[in-house]
Amino acid sequence: MLATFAALTGAIAVVSAQTGPRQVSLVIANGIVVTMNGNSRVITGGSVAIDGTDIVGVDTADAIRQQFRGRDTIDAAGQVVMPGLVNTHTHAPMVLYRGLADDLALMDWLNNYIFPAEAKTVSPEFVRAGTKLAALEMIESGTTTYADMYYFEEEIAKETKAAGLRGVLGETIIQFPVADAKTPADALARAEAFIKAYKDDPLITPAVAPHAIYTNDGPTLQAARELSKRYNVPTLIHMAETQAETKTAQERGSPSVVTYLDSLGFLGPGVLAAHGVWVSEADMAILKARGVGVSHNPESNMKLASGIAPVRGYLAAGVALGLGTDGAASNNDLDMFEAMRMAALLQKVASNDPTAVSAKTALQLATIGGARALGMDRQIGSLERGKHADVIVVGMSAARQTPMYDPISHLVYVTRGDDVRTTIVNGKVLMRNRKVLTLDEAAVLKEAKAWADKVRAAVTTNH
Amino acid sequence: MLATFAALTGAIAVVSAQTGPRQVSLVIANGIVVTMNGNSRVITGGSVAIDGTDIVGVDTADAIRQQFRGRDTIDAAGQVVMPGLVNTHTHAPMVLYRGLADDLALMDWLNNYIFPAEAKTVSPEFVRAGTKLAALEMIESGTTTYADMYYFEEEIAKETKAAGLRGVLGETIIQFPVADAKTPADALARAEAFIKAYKDDPLITPAVAPHAIYTNDGPTLQAARELSKRYNVPTLIHMAETQAETKTAQERGSPSVVTYLDSLGFLGPGVLAAHGVWVSEADMAILKARGVGVSHNPESNMKLASGIAPVRGYLAAGVALGLGTDGAASNNDLDMFEAMRMAALLQKVASNDPTAVSAKTALQLATIGGARALGMDRQIGSLERGKHADVIVVGMSAARQTPMYDPISHLVYVTRGDDVRTTIVNGKVLMRNRKVLTLDEAAVLKEAKAWADKVRAAVTTNH
Repeated sequence: MLATFAALTGAIAVVSAQTGPRQVSLVIANGIVVTMNGNSRVITGGSVAIDGTDIVGVDTADAIRQQFRGRDTIDAAGQVVMPGLVNTHTHAPMVLYRGLADDLALMDWLNNYIFPAEAKTVSPEFVRAGTKLAALEMIESGTTTYADMYYFEEEIAKETKAAGLRGVLGETIIQFPVADAKTPADALARAEAFIKAYKDDPLITPAVAPHAIYTNDGPTLQAARELSKRYNVPTLIHMAETQAETKTAQERGSPSVVTYLDSLGFLGPGVLAAHGVWVSEADMAILKARGVGVSHNPESNMKLASGIAPVRGYLAAGVALGLGTDGAASNNDLDMFEAMRMAALLQKVASNDPTAVSAKTALQLATIGGARALGMDRQIGSLERGKHADVIVVGMSAARQTPMYDPISHLVYVTRGDDVRTTIVNGKVLMRNRKVLTLDEAAVLKEAKAWADKVRAAVTTNH
Repeated sequence: MLATFAALTGAIAVVSAQTGPRQVSLVIANGIVVTMNGNSRVITGGSVAIDGTDIVGVDTADAIRQQFRGRDTIDAAGQVVMPGLVNTHTHAPMVLYRGLADDLALMDWLNNYIFPAEAKTVSPEFVRAGTKLAALEMIESGTTTYADMYYFEEEIAKETKAAGLRGVLGETIIQFPVADAKTPADALARAEAFIKAYKDDPLITPAVAPHAIYTNDGPTLQAARELSKRYNVPTLIHMAETQAETKTAQERGSPSVVTYLDSLGFLGPGVLAAHGVWVSEADMAILKARGVGVSHNPESNMKLASGIAPVRGYLAAGVALGLGTDGAASNNDLDMFEAMRMAALLQKVASNDPTAVSAKTALQLATIGGARALGMDRQIGSLERGKHADVIVVGMSAARQTPMYDPISHLVYVTRGDDVRTTIVNGKVLMRNRKVLTLDEAAVLKEAKAWADKVRAAVTTNH
């Protein structure tokens, strides 16, 4: 009798293995799935199946249950399941300078606070400590991919990879001596070594980051661009952030920053230009024609009074536009939910049109738009079968999120990074139910505070 | 021997009672005390002593320990202790409409969504459920006093009082029939009854709230103002929110909304005017001369593209200026930390000056400035001996708040309502360590969701 029963159960198991659900590594079950795919499909009561590093299914909970069985399951009832956020412009280690100096103009802030502080504190150890803190903050607030421009970028890469985040990391090329390079030539050599070390990494895309036109001459800008072309890696640059930058371009014989860069042969696919505030319609047409991606940083632009980027103009021109927080020294955090909210609110009031940059548009900028700006929209930026599993689960049950008529509205207008419950990158769970699994939070915060003491001392000496 | 010992202990107790620390109801100990007093004193390692409803001591932790012994103590180590936030303009029950309709112009939003939804759902029960949800959100985000304009204001008063919040609550006077009044005369009668019922309440200040000039004719505005003068209670009004309102004033023979109201004899001490976007320097001079308080609502003004209020102009003119969130239907939450951040960032970019509205100024607007705008700055708005004990304790240990160079910067640029740990109003602890003590959170959220179903049905029928 027992033997017969065992045989019977075995037979069922065999049948089930042939025709039943496929076993996969993880199913996120029964949430409000905001796919950000081409149709902006939202599936209430939907699930996402992940196997290894990739998304293998996005559908109703019933359909996914029939097709897949997760070795691990995350219950997302009442929560939003959506693509991880793409922060297209930051300087991760600068979290160690957050709130060090506020309410100052960009050049005053850079020349009298940030550059001197950097001169005295930036080192491989500083950069590693800062990246760990930034990674902690990004994981906690739902950013899964970020683009970075800083020094000792290979150290940033190490910590980014250890934290499990996806990064497009640009080694800075700048005309004056900095912590990791005495000359632009040194910086270019360092960038090349960095590219070689990380060229085929699954999480890290190495990049070359000429700082800006006002911190590099034409030949250096061209050399940086040539290097990234030679290795087919992205070029990251600050572009037309302040009105003063236009003057620099004009001193070099071009009417605008965009035309100046274009005259150098700098613009092309693979270039991600941060800020893009002071651009004309003609400039935007050039950016579109050259296939340049642009990163919009509303909070930094507001805080430093840099200006208001023509977001509607970029969208009308079809430029690949993403959102960024900029470094935490000018924001002062890395919360992409706030960047979305600010992008929507600022454009409305600036253009005197409350329909400008809807919640849906803001959400697109922070996900698939950012992926597109980085040239990564075939891999990330939406929940679609075959894309990498960069997924976040976002709580929707706070008093300030109650009631909920429209999850898209809530994601942009009342949700914060802190509402993110679970963060997954490349199929790996980095945070689960607010517990970060890849970093020791207490140790990271302690180390950051120790560095802050050194920063404080450096700035006190300077002033 | 025993008797001698007892006598000795008794003697010591008597001495202690005469010269030792005075027993008080509560001491908040050893925090970063941001007083917002006239000198903007910040006491690192400071304490606040509260007895009954009032603050009896604000000093270093050592000094307070020598003077006071709390029957209850709240440890604020590493946290900010500051005055509760003053939200000078909202419509509490409208939290039940949050996210119902976004990305629309004010008049479209009001006439096609909000007014129809209100016509079908506003009732005493609706208003009570909404006020409970709003109170929960305000307590959770550190607002201790709020100014409200809505219908069935006596129901709002009941729930505000039950939740333990301080409220300046204005019964709406509006020309067209609304849920609680068929005519302005009905509304005025209702307002008068409300005033009589709450005139001497320790927490509730009843007020009269003529909605705006575009929703009331001159005689109704004057009657509303007369009523509030007769009882010496505040008058709350929407003023110069959109450019269209200036047209209304001009049709009535005045160049601006301010001059129109002034021609009616409407402006004077006790008037709190919300928005004040479309005002000239001459208008601001009139507001200053008349002693009118103004509520700045940056998020609502941005979201509805109403315009950018001249905050620097108000400050230069010496107008009593506070901050408000506006109703959650146009914000979409009641977080005053976000209002501060937005006030600072918006003015910087709008005036092309990053020094405009510093973190300190933004914090003043949200505390003592708001108290001044409401004419309550002798009672609330700062941590000073003799003022009511409206105090909040704010966490400063999140990754996005690390490191901390300046608590004022962090309060404005990286802190959210959710960081508030403890909220005290009139000496009573309403939330302790994130646990709200005066409301049943689960029940409040459940009731709000039930009302949302009715709202959804009302709007679906309408469109």
